[in-house]
Amino acid sequence: MALIVQKYGGSSVADAERIKNVARRILATKDKGNQVVVVVSAMGDTTDELIQLAYQVARQPGERELDVLLSTGELVASTLLAMALREMGCAAISLSGAQAGIRTDANHSQARILKIDTKRVVTELKKGNVVIVAGFQGITEEMDVTTLGRGGSDTTAVALAASLGAKVCERYTDVEGIYTADPRLVAEAQRLDEISYEEMLELATYGSKAIHPRAVELGELFNIPILVASSFTDKPGTLIHGEESMEVRNKVRSIAHDLDVAKITVVGVPDRPGIAATLFVALAKANISVDTIVQNASISNITDLTFTVAKGQLGKAMAVVEPIARSIGARECVSDAKLGKVSVIGTGMQNAPGYAARMFEALSGQGINIQLITTSEIRITCIIEESRVKDAVRALHRVFELDT
Amino acid sequence: MALIVQKYGGSSVADAERIKNVARRILATKDKGNQVVVVVSAMGDTTDELIQLAYQVARQPGERELDVLLSTGELVASTLLAMALREMGCAAISLSGAQAGIRTDANHSQARILKIDTKRVVTELKKGNVVIVAGFQGITEEMDVTTLGRGGSDTTAVALAASLGAKVCERYTDVEGIYTADPRLVAEAQRLDEISYEEMLELATYGSKAIHPRAVELGELFNIPILVASSFTDKPGTLIHGEESMEVRNKVRSIAHDLDVAKITVVGVPDRPGIAATLFVALAKANISVDTIVQNASISNITDLTFTVAKGQLGKAMAVVEPIARSIGARECVSDAKLGKVSVIGTGMQNAPGYAARMFEALSGQGINIQLITTSEIRITCIIEESRVKDAVRALHRVFELDT
Repeated sequence: MALIVQKYGGSSVADAERIKNVARRILATKDKGNQVVVVVSAMGDTTDELIQLAYQVARQPGERELDVLLSTGELVASTLLAMALREMGCAAISLSGAQAGIRTDANHSQARILKIDTKRVVTELKKGNVVIVAGFQGITEEMDVTTLGRGGSDTTAVALAASLGAKVCERYTDVEGIYTADPRLVAEAQRLDEISYEEMLELATYGSKAIHPRAVELGELFNIPILVASSFTDKPGTLIHGEESMEVRNKVRSIAHDLDVAKITVVGVPDRPGIAATLFVALAKANISVDTIVQNASISNITDLTFTVAKGQLGKAMAVVEPIARSIGARECVSDAKLGKVSVIGTGMQNAPGYAARMFEALSGQGINIQLITTSEIRITCIIEESRVKDAVRALHRVFELDT
Repeated sequence: MALIVQKYGGSSVADAERIKNVARRILATKDKGNQVVVVVSAMGDTTDELIQLAYQVARQPGERELDVLLSTGELVASTLLAMALREMGCAAISLSGAQAGIRTDANHSQARILKIDTKRVVTELKKGNVVIVAGFQGITEEMDVTTLGRGGSDTTAVALAASLGAKVCERYTDVEGIYTADPRLVAEAQRLDEISYEEMLELATYGSKAIHPRAVELGELFNIPILVASSFTDKPGTLIHGEESMEVRNKVRSIAHDLDVAKITVVGVPDRPGIAATLFVALAKANISVDTIVQNASISNITDLTFTVAKGQLGKAMAVVEPIARSIGARECVSDAKLGKVSVIGTGMQNAPGYAARMFEALSGQGINIQLITTSEIRITCIIEESRVKDAVRALHRVFELDT
């Protein structure tokens, strides 16, 4: 008898019919002789609606109150799913994050899980129940409700799978798995049967919305295989797991892209220690996430410093950066809000030369100008004009032989 | 510094504007130097919508799951109200029933409060917070969420007021207080400044919807004055409190009526011990609430047994009663679904004769036939044709000099 943790996203439980559909899938898993723990997100747009309601009563809703408010969305979905299962004759019980023993720090709206006390979940499993846990939420030592922020329900699921020693964490949404590129951009994109944690982390960080990097990190840390699949079909999905067991395969696994890129360059920065720190500490305090940072080697003690942010944060970032740039004697600040990012990802690349050259050649062949380059051991990323991202993804998909 | 418990009903917090309005009222109470604990119901029709959702996924939603589902309505309202208060610069925190220490038995959907551990509420009050408690809910020893059933949020408020030693429990809805009769029926109906627990209990039980009898009972038990007033006006409302402090006043306080009355008579019942028990145990098992029961004195070992139920339960009740009537050898069962109830209530009546006579005379003067009569020490109730209830209430209001 294996223990399986399943997680269903908001679109999978958006209405009563879909909830019943999910209940049937859970029942089928149980009928194969498995113990099943299910983590569920709020129905459809519930979370957005609750946020709207909050902003109707307050311009700045307190984070503690907002956490309690948002946590109700997952409670509703989890109880409805338990009801639907019981209606089908399947023993089931819903548990809140607190009841499931999910203890977090008190960092409201983006709490981190400290530990999971699995006692109640284990007791309910022993009674023969399918245990439905409200995702995205936990509780502090003072018994205050917290939410886990972005990727919260995925994180709940993987953390529960790790604490319970589950065989696998199955994550169901409306996508059928991880692809060699976004199928909306590349008609030839292929679904991958499997992918390593490392590769998935790079993919998720560099543009894939299929799963949040935080959940992938946790899966890697505790070596929990994560299946990404659709709750609307019976297709097999993609298994994210450890490297060692992997088949021989193409060295490039997938092309990621991201259209939400804006760039700021501080031109003519005096090359003194502490200047980068001054700038990025100020941005962090303003709660602006900085993505790629590039600084060219200094010539004659003057350098240019470039970094990227999400487009929506460009104005706020410029307001932070410009006065600092003036105070440190930089020449000027320039920005560009019409950029995109394209990345080639694969663990096979790390010990094989020539991938960067092939990538640059492919982009050049399309007449695409590369504005910035960054790399990791298993990834090469180019920042290019937003309008050329689609062409770039297609060209790279072809050049790295992912079409077949 | 006095401690005041306020309770706001669903219509008082039906949307963002009304929530802000309630927040202003709370702030005004705090600004007068009071400590304030607020109990809040779910917004508008939220509870009905959640129930509908449950019945969309299951024909018989489990009561444990239904309790968790319904409890989210009060959580949402309490967090929004806390946000609105904080936005106005007023320190405030929302607490779930569990956090407010409301321990109940495990009788899901109609749990009874066992005790209230006020530690967290007291701590938050000491910090200077207005404490907003989600009404209608509690938690079992096993940390499972329960709901308190009908009159639940009123009960939460009065129980909290008792546990905290509050000066008064103020209950706000869309009615301006308790009247000498329903103002929709009697234009001359007067708002009462005060009423005793006993009288209010009879009024609530015999048709007034202004407050649930359960909360009144609890108020009487712990001697907590309850103010019934509107959250939409600044009118003074009606204070429900102990008898002793009351002014000299009219001996009849109010005329109650109820249009939801159906009657069943089992005709020709052999007068043997145990027959009434057989009948009413069977009705209780079928979860049918029986109201008035009248059995005439036995003549020649044959009697008639009459009782009333809510109209919606008449069919179900007949299905239970008819086979039993046959098996005990009764002659027949007859029913009437078009009845109403009119009651004259006042503690002043108990030591003064002649009230019943004046009531029957008044009804007779209108040509109204009395079908059943029941009395308590402070109440006389007649069951009459539904179509004559309005005339009866008006006539009694006049005869007992409540018009002025």
